[in-house]
Amino acid sequence: MMAAKTNPGRFFEDYAVGDVLKHAVPRTVSGGERALYHALYPARHALYSSDAFAQDCGLPKSPIDDLAAFHVIFGKTVPDVSLNAVANLGYAEGRWLLPVYEGDTLRSESEVIGLKQNSNGKTGVVYVRTRGLNQRDEVVMDYVRWVMVRKSNLDAPAPETVVPELKKALTPADLVIPEGLDFSNYDFTLAGEPHRWGDYAVGETIDHVDGVTIEEAEHMLATRLWQNTAKVHFDLTFRPEGRLIYGGHVISMARALSFNGLANAQMIVGLNGGAHANPCFAGQTVKAWSEVLDKAETAAPGVGAIRLRLVATKGGAPFELKGEDGKYKPEVLLDLDYWALMPM
Amino acid sequence: MMAAKTNPGRFFEDYAVGDVLKHAVPRTVSGGERALYHALYPARHALYSSDAFAQDCGLPKSPIDDLAAFHVIFGKTVPDVSLNAVANLGYAEGRWLLPVYEGDTLRSESEVIGLKQNSNGKTGVVYVRTRGLNQRDEVVMDYVRWVMVRKSNLDAPAPETVVPELKKALTPADLVIPEGLDFSNYDFTLAGEPHRWGDYAVGETIDHVDGVTIEEAEHMLATRLWQNTAKVHFDLTFRPEGRLIYGGHVISMARALSFNGLANAQMIVGLNGGAHANPCFAGQTVKAWSEVLDKAETAAPGVGAIRLRLVATKGGAPFELKGEDGKYKPEVLLDLDYWALMPM
Amino acid sequence: MMAAKTNPGRFFEDYAVGDVLKHAVPRTVSGGERALYHALYPARHALYSSDAFAQDCGLPKSPIDDLAAFHVIFGKTVPDVSLNAVANLGYAEGRWLLPVYEGDTLRSESEVIGLKQNSNGKTGVVYVRTRGLNQRDEVVMDYVRWVMVRKSNLDAPAPETVVPELKKALTPADLVIPEGLDFSNYDFTLAGEPHRWGDYAVGETIDHVDGVTIEEAEHMLATRLWQNTAKVHFDLTFRPEGRLIYGGHVISMARALSFNGLANAQMIVGLNGGAHANPCFAGQTVKAWSEVLDKAETAAPGVGAIRLRLVATKGGAPFELKGEDGKYKPEVLLDLDYWALMPM
Repeated sequence: MMAAKTNPGRFFEDYAVGDVLKHAVPRTVSGGERALYHALYPARHALYSSDAFAQDCGLPKSPIDDLAAFHVIFGKTVPDVSLNAVANLGYAEGRWLLPVYEGDTLRSESEVIGLKQNSNGKTGVVYVRTRGLNQRDEVVMDYVRWVMVRKSNLDAPAPETVVPELKKALTPADLVIPEGLDFSNYDFTLAGEPHRWGDYAVGETIDHVDGVTIEEAEHMLATRLWQNTAKVHFDLTFRPEGRLIYGGHVISMARALSFNGLANAQMIVGLNGGAHANPCFAGQTVKAWSEVLDKAETAAPGVGAIRLRLVATKGGAPFELKGEDGKYKPEVLLDLDYWALMPM
Repeated sequence: MMAAKTNPGRFFEDYAVGDVLKHAVPRTVSGGERALYHALYPARHALYSSDAFAQDCGLPKSPIDDLAAFHVIFGKTVPDVSLNAVANLGYAEGRWLLPVYEGDTLRSESEVIGLKQNSNGKTGVVYVRTRGLNQRDEVVMDYVRWVMVRKSNLDAPAPETVVPELKKALTPADLVIPEGLDFSNYDFTLAGEPHRWGDYAVGETIDHVDGVTIEEAEHMLATRLWQNTAKVHFDLTFRPEGRLIYGGHVISMARALSFNGLANAQMIVGLNGGAHANPCFAGQTVKAWSEVLDKAETAAPGVGAIRLRLVATKGGAPFELKGEDGKYKPEVLLDLDYWALMPM
Repeated sequence: MMAAKTNPGRFFEDYAVGDVLKHAVPRTVSGGERALYHALYPARHALYSSDAFAQDCGLPKSPIDDLAAFHVIFGKTVPDVSLNAVANLGYAEGRWLLPVYEGDTLRSESEVIGLKQNSNGKTGVVYVRTRGLNQRDEVVMDYVRWVMVRKSNLDAPAPETVVPELKKALTPADLVIPEGLDFSNYDFTLAGEPHRWGDYAVGETIDHVDGVTIEEAEHMLATRLWQNTAKVHFDLTFRPEGRLIYGGHVISMARALSFNGLANAQMIVGLNGGAHANPCFAGQTVKAWSEVLDKAETAAPGVGAIRLRLVATKGGAPFELKGEDGKYKPEVLLDLDYWALMPM
């Protein structure tokens, strides 16, 4: 009887293309989440730090950090999508559609858009498109994620293979600029750096220099804050070899470190792709470097878009991503591809 | 002169039945406390996470977590009640009378309702009934707690023994349901589990499966947040063998872990009793199991009451509480008996 | 090209007397910062904990802790003032001019008021007067700080030496009392101690008894919360011998510990001076003692001013500051000289 009450998570055979999973535990965000975000990461982008700065950029006030919104939305999917996941394989087509403000309540739902059983018959890949919604049922962000999930019943028949066509990268036309955003009167001094959109060249690389050596308490505080319940992050009796750090913690750490050199890449609006190249553990020192992949103008006044590769490492030299074998170097933690908005 | 300025705490001979101790340092709570509660514990009960969910249940918005309110009220009593305590012996007759919302200011006062000097002449048991009040002088919760306190002056005469009659458990009629609470339109999907009041049987046990390995920084952050000043929790020169973790940290951790199986035991409204069976230290992994002790209907629409035993452990198998000697097993940290409200 | 994007910090030859540095990243504070402050430090001063208490003292509501406001303002100066600093030499003439409330947005600017190249030709002392401003461009605090900064170009000519005349201590007439502050109806019970201004004598010393053993995660959370980016606090690959704890963390810890004996020294309004006598590292246990240096009446009803020396230690006996050689004892971490407001 008791086994019926706790959540065993879903296995590969429990998904069908077209299923819509309504994820549990909506969350109202406040200044508390913002303060914690600033305590957990060296986050300094001015638009997410200051109401006055955000208002000077045409927003009603400072939103919750774009990645904090992502984590809140993502965390809710864990019990339904990745509790029995073997690996988090990728992200695509992530778009931030509306800023999230204090007092907003977020919930998430995911549609199964693809399934592919692996040839070993023991696992399969599940593709979901997740939407984060606010209390007015407006979609504040959506993204595609695919994970490898174990089968529980190895005798369950393989589903018809459906692999969704996903864009390698969002086009500039796919990006949604927050209503009212205007960088015409952008204050570069307050933002922290003088470099504008025109100062960055495609192919340019930036070593963000700073590093943070990660402590166990910090990544657990972060991961819980997003109500991510995967036990690999918390329970040393489950993983005596060390708690696995939530990949999103590395994303936020690297993004915050990228302030030094990209202080004006203010708002993330698109997530083209991302790979958690190697696991991260406490005691490792996370550093970051970026590469400018693309640039585009937008219709919003003074607002340019910049596509960036953000790489987090736990050692090694910057700008080294893959070995001769085409595989990520062992010191690479994260390879993220995103679009941000920057003053022109 | 200097000794006169710091607080030495009260000793057993400093208490008299009927004394009312007005505890210091009122506290205004905000979204900051709520965010920290979610960062410190894997708390996911939807009513305390989402304004929208709380409003759908008839409340004006999401309250501060019931146990967070308890900790704020409890913390204030430490300098007056337990600074010189040898042991925290028990709780009884705890009732949550009003939800606490952002912007509320809490203070505490305790009435001494019992005294019993121990036969060794060196210590005695002090019983207090503590009330937490808000800025409108409304009582938001009350509970009885008894502690063993040292005597400073061993020659002080023993007081007349007064042992209050305390209920073994609150009856359903003792429970106060928050005004307006209505679970008629309860959204089980958003809450995270389908199990309603009728799905739980008296005697049923639930292994909550998940665990958290505790870090020093986390329990200190929590304990300070509740302005609990007992130095055993903080000062390794005072306790070189290890900081003793505040018992309330274990309560909140176990309650949050119990979401997995009891996601719909939304609001704690009664504390029947509780024992901190063994001390808890950083590095230990806290897990939890529950047993259904009783059930009752209430007058509120769709709202049932469920009485639960919540046990926190640092190892061992679930559902093992005491040895053949009738004593708690060494791996049991907490044995808590409470009433919660659940959709019918 | 990439080197141009990250901030190398300023070197001694980059400063000129009269320069005004407008520091980056304004910050809106909320209840989140307050809750974190209470989680990071055992802060209990009632005026900063309770809206109701603050209102009874004539303020509109409870401000953000005075030292939290200081840290927010200070943190912004780090990238421009102390990224290449060898040592933080001193503070003077610090005044809290306006309380900071939830929703206020703080920014900082610093004027270079002194320069003195050292005889070794490799370093020099930079004196700045820093102002913290709110969203209405009101100055909420100002203070003078001087740091020893490296030269990058050793051939750069020495600037004309300008050493500002700084007051050894603010006079009572220099102190700014928050508008409306009134301690006539001060509630000593709620505040936590009965000792009023008249109960303290110049020369009196107070051992604050309590201690906190510092954890890595905690000081990093604090330092990041103030957006202080100095890598010595975070990166163990940069400082394998141990992360250096931000001096402000020690200030806040000592001030919070001083509640026990100085619970009524409610508001800090003046910073006369301060020395970080020795570096602090995780694992050390911070304790504190105070000495009453001066007392003064003020024009505000029921409000007295008290000048205090606050000393933080990592061991040793209280009340021992310097050795026979006139140097700080090795166990002294901090020697701070400040003015606070206290009920008469």
